[in-house]
Amino acid sequence: MSNGGGGGGASSSTHLLDLLEEPIPGVGTYDDFHTIDWVREKCKDRERHRKINSKKKESAWEFTKSLYDAWSGWLVVTLTGLASGALAGVIDIAADWMNDLKEGVCLSAMWFNHEQCCWGSNETTFAERDKCPQWKTWAELILGQAEGPGSYIMNYFMFTFWALSFAFLAVSLVKVFAPYACGSGIPEIKTILSGFIIRGYLGKWTLMIKTITLVLAVASGLSLGKEGPLVHVACCCGNIFSYLFPKYSKNEAKKREVLSAASAAGVSVAFGAPIGGVLFSLEEVSYYFPLKTLWRSFFAALVAAFVLRSINPFGNSRLVLFYVEYHTPWYLFELFPFILLGVFGGLWGAFFIRANIAWCRRRKSTRFGKYPVLEVITVAAITAIVAFPNPYTRQNTSELIKELFTDCGPLESSQLCQYRSQMNGSQAYPQGSDAAATPGVYSAMWQLSLALIFKIIMTIFTFGLKVPSGLFIPSMAIGAIAGRIVGIAVEQLAYYHHDWFLFREWCEVGADCITPGLYAMVGAAACLGGVTRMTVSLVVIVFELTGGLEYIVPLMAAVMTSKWVGDAFGREGIYEAHIRLNGYPFLDAKEEFTHTTLAREVMRPRRSDPPLAVLTQDDMTLSELQAIISETSYNGFPVIVSKESQRLVGFALRRDITIAIENARRKQEGIMLNSRVYFTQHAPTLPADSPRPLKLRSILDMSPFTVTDHTPMEIVVDIFRKLGLRQCLVTHNGIVLGIITKKNILEHLEELKQHVEPLIDDI
Amino acid sequence: MSNGGGGGGASSSTHLLDLLEEPIPGVGTYDDFHTIDWVREKCKDRERHRKINSKKKESAWEFTKSLYDAWSGWLVVTLTGLASGALAGVIDIAADWMNDLKEGVCLSAMWFNHEQCCWGSNETTFAERDKCPQWKTWAELILGQAEGPGSYIMNYFMFTFWALSFAFLAVSLVKVFAPYACGSGIPEIKTILSGFIIRGYLGKWTLMIKTITLVLAVASGLSLGKEGPLVHVACCCGNIFSYLFPKYSKNEAKKREVLSAASAAGVSVAFGAPIGGVLFSLEEVSYYFPLKTLWRSFFAALVAAFVLRSINPFGNSRLVLFYVEYHTPWYLFELFPFILLGVFGGLWGAFFIRANIAWCRRRKSTRFGKYPVLEVITVAAITAIVAFPNPYTRQNTSELIKELFTDCGPLESSQLCQYRSQMNGSQAYPQGSDAAATPGVYSAMWQLSLALIFKIIMTIFTFGLKVPSGLFIPSMAIGAIAGRIVGIAVEQLAYYHHDWFLFREWCEVGADCITPGLYAMVGAAACLGGVTRMTVSLVVIVFELTGGLEYIVPLMAAVMTSKWVGDAFGREGIYEAHIRLNGYPFLDAKEEFTHTTLAREVMRPRRSDPPLAVLTQDDMTLSELQAIISETSYNGFPVIVSKESQRLVGFALRRDITIAIENARRKQEGIMLNSRVYFTQHAPTLPADSPRPLKLRSILDMSPFTVTDHTPMEIVVDIFRKLGLRQCLVTHNGIVLGIITKKNILEHLEELKQHVEPLIDDI
Repeated sequence: MSNGGGGGGASSSTHLLDLLEEPIPGVGTYDDFHTIDWVREKCKDRERHRKINSKKKESAWEFTKSLYDAWSGWLVVTLTGLASGALAGVIDIAADWMNDLKEGVCLSAMWFNHEQCCWGSNETTFAERDKCPQWKTWAELILGQAEGPGSYIMNYFMFTFWALSFAFLAVSLVKVFAPYACGSGIPEIKTILSGFIIRGYLGKWTLMIKTITLVLAVASGLSLGKEGPLVHVACCCGNIFSYLFPKYSKNEAKKREVLSAASAAGVSVAFGAPIGGVLFSLEEVSYYFPLKTLWRSFFAALVAAFVLRSINPFGNSRLVLFYVEYHTPWYLFELFPFILLGVFGGLWGAFFIRANIAWCRRRKSTRFGKYPVLEVITVAAITAIVAFPNPYTRQNTSELIKELFTDCGPLESSQLCQYRSQMNGSQAYPQGSDAAATPGVYSAMWQLSLALIFKIIMTIFTFGLKVPSGLFIPSMAIGAIAGRIVGIAVEQLAYYHHDWFLFREWCEVGADCITPGLYAMVGAAACLGGVTRMTVSLVVIVFELTGGLEYIVPLMAAVMTSKWVGDAFGREGIYEAHIRLNGYPFLDAKEEFTHTTLAREVMRPRRSDPPLAVLTQDDMTLSELQAIISETSYNGFPVIVSKESQRLVGFALRRDITIAIENARRKQEGIMLNSRVYFTQHAPTLPADSPRPLKLRSILDMSPFTVTDHTPMEIVVDIFRKLGLRQCLVTHNGIVLGIITKKNILEHLEELKQHVEPLIDDI
Repeated sequence: MSNGGGGGGASSSTHLLDLLEEPIPGVGTYDDFHTIDWVREKCKDRERHRKINSKKKESAWEFTKSLYDAWSGWLVVTLTGLASGALAGVIDIAADWMNDLKEGVCLSAMWFNHEQCCWGSNETTFAERDKCPQWKTWAELILGQAEGPGSYIMNYFMFTFWALSFAFLAVSLVKVFAPYACGSGIPEIKTILSGFIIRGYLGKWTLMIKTITLVLAVASGLSLGKEGPLVHVACCCGNIFSYLFPKYSKNEAKKREVLSAASAAGVSVAFGAPIGGVLFSLEEVSYYFPLKTLWRSFFAALVAAFVLRSINPFGNSRLVLFYVEYHTPWYLFELFPFILLGVFGGLWGAFFIRANIAWCRRRKSTRFGKYPVLEVITVAAITAIVAFPNPYTRQNTSELIKELFTDCGPLESSQLCQYRSQMNGSQAYPQGSDAAATPGVYSAMWQLSLALIFKIIMTIFTFGLKVPSGLFIPSMAIGAIAGRIVGIAVEQLAYYHHDWFLFREWCEVGADCITPGLYAMVGAAACLGGVTRMTVSLVVIVFELTGGLEYIVPLMAAVMTSKWVGDAFGREGIYEAHIRLNGYPFLDAKEEFTHTTLAREVMRPRRSDPPLAVLTQDDMTLSELQAIISETSYNGFPVIVSKESQRLVGFALRRDITIAIENARRKQEGIMLNSRVYFTQHAPTLPADSPRPLKLRSILDMSPFTVTDHTPMEIVVDIFRKLGLRQCLVTHNGIVLGIITKKNILEHLEELKQHVEPLIDDI
């Protein structure tokens, strides 16, 4: 049996012929930082599946095993969903508590956060639900006084102190225990899903440390979110559970199906959007997404959402803090500010990507990157010191987004909602109509503008720090602030100029025609779209937050504008940019190849290179073979009929050859340096005194992918993407000329990008 | 320029070399009932795109053209969405009016349907909103009396008369003007999207006749729905609008992107579910679905939904008649009846597919199929005669579904909601609690059971008639009836046995714990799932009908069960079964290939066949070439170096060769029967007296796809599916052995299905 050893082609063809040969252990596995061969993996899986099916009728035990095997896909996604939901709940609760710890502590029960502490209190009135005797700020606790400059400084100090402690702890844990736990993880997950192997990236240590440090990083007040890292956490769960099922643990391609489902579950709990999560997995992260995976991803996303809902971390039976419902419709003229917000989002996205990548490149290339702990502490200190005086930056970013999304209502005590009542001129809620803003609103606008600048600057320096850091929440916050400012401006414009032709038709005096919260939501979607260049999944995620089909059109208008504006400055989203920065071999399925090069221009060897290293099928000795292997560093070699004819027989991988030779030396006697090596079915006729020959047919891939030298690269790139190839041989009239690997293609794309102005693709 | 003529490979390689040669008109197009070559089409599109881009800077006009080209994708989906929404609205309104025409007529305004007629009346009380003096039944109009056996018979007669007239008109129009307008169209659209060409199937005649006859067919009361045909109508719109844009009209692959978006728009208006529509297009009909198409499909679906909403055909500002909101949660023990409904759905699906296919095969193979008009009239007569006495079959099926989905409330006057009030024992609405059913409910149950049997039998004979007929609504109706019956049974069980351990925990006395409407919805989803084997898209469609995340779990449980039960009896859905019945060349992307055959076992020629017909690159005369073409019927020929070496050079299509020869005869002088034909770059050296040679390099595809003879068929099938190939050459050590076409693969699959027991795939 040559299970998988001979690549896609050999497995079944040699099935019958080599029954006497045992599979060579190790053949068909991968080294770290190598790319998997999707075709080979899928063939391996079908072979395994056939074996189980053929044994099924032998005994009840085998039948049970086959049933277990058939169900294991559902089991593993269920477990992944359960674990992701539970971890998301734990992270939400813990981060909330630690975030409030920066301000004070609950005396009646240490483990309560501010809100829980005061909900339990009977002495709390609804209007002042934030204040209760059980909750003590640090100034009250240490100095015994709640007001005055002394207590302000005390609170300021404790706020900064806790922020720095959390940040220090987070970065130290990451540095010491799991370096892979830093960042958002999405670029790496995209790369892994496309077929790259990074051992330990989704392991149990990464999971544990990422969960803990994510809580710390969020609580430290840094300008980062937990949404991206939650996807990484969910993928770790998926990877770990897949080890329970040999079907998934032993097959890299099948494992990636579980990871696709896990990333859907991650987004599902991050935003409370199961359908959005599935579309995110489909649009943004996954590479190979068969329909069965779609169905399982949906299931995983639902399970995770239900677990999170039963944990109920926010006490509102919603999955996210910033769930919101609007009651007024939008009007056609509002599309103009919405599209403006889209332009802003696109500009912000393009600016952020450039600035952040420039900064990260600097970190990578200079000595400065050697001190990650110092960097984190510096950024955390600046963030805490600047953030404290401004209420909009002091509070948790999710809470800020919630406040900005929420429309003003009778229960809102926020400064943003201090409108002048029309009845008596007092400061009150406008009771379902637009109203004049009070100085409270104007000062809130100032504070929001400062918060916007602060967030923009800090986010650039924060994303890429050696702590878990997501980008969704800061981007959304920036968009929400900008959107709310625009919304209030439009609202006041409509109030004071309600006889303009634009407003006359829609905004009657006393009617509530502008919803500033909706502007905040549109702005948030636009900014997130500008940074990530997501489209459908983003709209669906935000749609699931509002639950109204009504607002899809504004969202789409803004997100589409944002993508187009962003694309005009560079087509890469932040994740692709980071993938390229880190040099991962990722062949983007989204970008179309628009050049006219041919396969012969990309293949190796180039004209100036030494000739292609090939093996002949039956006239090489072991020492010649070893010489070729030691002299070159290629991952595989074409096997040809003979040096004279150069016709292609198959392909053999370097790793497989080395393993097979070692194995033969150990197990077979009489293998010497001048042993003949042959890949044919029958041993070649040899002189009588020659040593025992070595048969390597079982590791020969007899169905290598080939293209002719005239094939346009656009077709080659398409084949690589769709079939997930590692390499492809180039022939001319049946003769081997060269080889193209995934790396060659990426290098070629990089060259073209630098030399040729890329064609503008259609929109 | 050899634009597209030489297949994928030749276009750019010969670009510079053959500048003097003009493109041969007709090369690169397809015959009717042929399969397109996706790779070639995509190459053609990129070539066109490059040309536009390179000209862009030449003048303002060219720049405008390039902008128009870049935007045309959005334009065409917008137009498609607008047209689909508008047509759906027109169809809804017209079908509603004609359906009511069977019962009576509005005297004040002929063009009002029953509901509109009575809404306008002041004399209508809310409780009897169906009755008003303006609306006259036929008995009232003709006999002058509203009650009594005479008027009943009169109404019965008129009902049958109108039903027969509508059915006769529908089938005659289809037969005379557009035979392609019959059926649901989804099997054909799936086939077309997979790359098959059926000219006229999506043309303007089909659109016009299908729209008109769909209204007639629905109004005739036959057991069919308008949802499937609406997808066909939307695709016709997409196809017609794509002719406005050369980018889409001249490229079969690009046109299919528009059709994918159109089918999403079709489902969007059929069910008022834009996201569900996109997922339907992705899961069920589309073959090649790049992300750009996802985004555009979403847009088309939204536009269509908004147009339909502004037309507001049902007067409830909803997109569908049976939109519903539930207010009570479901309990865990209810999963058991939900799964039972899933089993019922799966059994119904399997039974329906077998019975319907058997009946359709009979129609195809016997003389019986020669009389479509007679058949339609017979079925319509039986349907009308049997349906009239039972109120649940007499009414419109959509209205029936609405009634079954809706929970009993204070405004419901239906017989299904006659519960005994707990306060005073009178027959009244149960006021938010389970209650004992009255005899009214029991008689409704009897009528529903009869309606169930009737629908089951009639649907089998109706689907496949020569009128437009969708399957969604009848399937949903069957499921909804079964679900409602189960729901009422569980409700009464819970009411009378509220101390059982199952009910004790959840159903307090006087609480409303069972929602029979939800059971109807779950049953509808299960039956639809059993018939079509859709999963995610179905759940999302129904989710969009209810708008509550809450009910996704029951829906998923039922739909999954239904799919598994159905798959146990045969893995094909009704659409795949009809595709196979009609013999379309459709390679299902969902079904996994699980056999172990190799490419050499499938390729042609087989061992007993004559040898492969090949062309040599430079030593054939025109007469030899013509002899090969006239003696064989293959669609293409491999070109080899020479008869001796048999090494592969390229591939030439029969159609292209014939066109090129004719073209040469017309335009080039000196081409004679003994002219040498060559495919090489330079003309071969010829004796001095030989006639002028004919160069055919421009039609040579120099990058044909090849696989080795040892390649497992699972890989070959994968390549065909993912790259959309027409044919693939089989080589051994660089020498051409044979060819595999899509047809060969389908034949092979068919053979395997008959001879080998298929392996049970994982669930």
